[in-house]
Amino acid sequence: MVLLIHHSVSPFSRKVRIAMGEKKMLFVLREEEPWNLSADMYKLNPAGSLPVFLSDGNVIAGNYAICEYLEEFNREIPLLPQDLKQRAEVRRLVEWFDDKFYKEVYRNIAYEKIHKRFGSGLAPDSRILKIGLNNLNFHLEYLDWLTERNNYLAGENLTLADAAAAAQLSIIDYLGDVPWEGYRNAKLWYSKMKSRPSFKDILKDSVKGILPAKHYANLDF
Amino acid sequence: MVLLIHHSVSPFSRKVRIAMGEKKMLFVLREEEPWNLSADMYKLNPAGSLPVFLSDGNVIAGNYAICEYLEEFNREIPLLPQDLKQRAEVRRLVEWFDDKFYKEVYRNIAYEKIHKRFGSGLAPDSRILKIGLNNLNFHLEYLDWLTERNNYLAGENLTLADAAAAAQLSIIDYLGDVPWEGYRNAKLWYSKMKSRPSFKDILKDSVKGILPAKHYANLDF
Repeated sequence: MVLLIHHSVSPFSRKVRIAMGEKKMLFVLREEEPWNLSADMYKLNPAGSLPVFLSDGNVIAGNYAICEYLEEFNREIPLLPQDLKQRAEVRRLVEWFDDKFYKEVYRNIAYEKIHKRFGSGLAPDSRILKIGLNNLNFHLEYLDWLTERNNYLAGENLTLADAAAAAQLSIIDYLGDVPWEGYRNAKLWYSKMKSRPSFKDILKDSVKGILPAKHYANLDF
Repeated sequence: MVLLIHHSVSPFSRKVRIAMGEKKMLFVLREEEPWNLSADMYKLNPAGSLPVFLSDGNVIAGNYAICEYLEEFNREIPLLPQDLKQRAEVRRLVEWFDDKFYKEVYRNIAYEKIHKRFGSGLAPDSRILKIGLNNLNFHLEYLDWLTERNNYLAGENLTLADAAAAAQLSIIDYLGDVPWEGYRNAKLWYSKMKSRPSFKDILKDSVKGILPAKHYANLDF
């Protein structure tokens, strides 16, 4: 049995869930609150980060290790192209969302609105939120440009880059903060992602005490 | 010809230089200041991050994409083990240093002391430095524990995890901020890393206006 320890507001957990879903892997979820990790979690992953992947007694910790492991272990439905340069391009885009989008958008919006509230009880800092919302426009422009020429971020097929991007965006969208209207191609791409079977459970996610935006689970939004 | 656009205080540039050195690849370096990137850099890497790898007209941007590309392209001297679970363990450690050490130590020490000075002319914030130095002790403890049982971080062979860790630490060591004395195994490991031919040029690195700590280039420190 494959067990994924995750949280619904952890973008890296969502990325792994989408990747496993695309690879048609069966798995069971166990939730851990990122702001209230149990001592056991540090035994499984001393870095204290989510997600953690468990399968037949093996523990694989961390977004990077898990995603590359999934790709090496389950080659039937690949999420990286065969060509080395194209693989590098997918990984460049993955890093864009895992690192740049995470720091510039997720940390400023989702962390402020969710983690701070549950972690310390503090209200979000409106100046930080504003920076995050500004940065989000820049990222949506880039996404719009990428999806103008291709069906998916790195070409005609869905790759790990799409999982990384949709994972981050879906949490901002849960909060109702994505101004989709100005970004037609990006919106069309996200609507395609939402209709994937791998996204079904993510659209059912809920965060205790925070209602999703009305359109969050709608395929037509 | 392989060209690496880098900077001597970019830990991810150092990581790639060590990895290419270990793989006995020949390459030429071109320096770009992270706080003063040229417009051309954004054409090569829209994320504006270092390093960027160029080879025969191909551009590969970003730490993650470059390191995985090097491993896939040049298999003669591998920096990842063959076994899938061991590969995942190396990648977990890589993420530890690329992400956790970078945020908890590098950002608080090197960014404060170097990037702020050249980027904005501001002095380092002593409270932030103190947080970085405290975090550094925690990371050195972990490193000491890892190297107590093995020659290298993930076992008997040097892997990408050693490159990632030594890259980050070498910049903090340039600034003279690593309290090696309390961490015997970690010190022994770092001394081994310093004596690798792949490290030779890194020990000659200099940052304009900031002298290295006296022991920085000494193999016996």
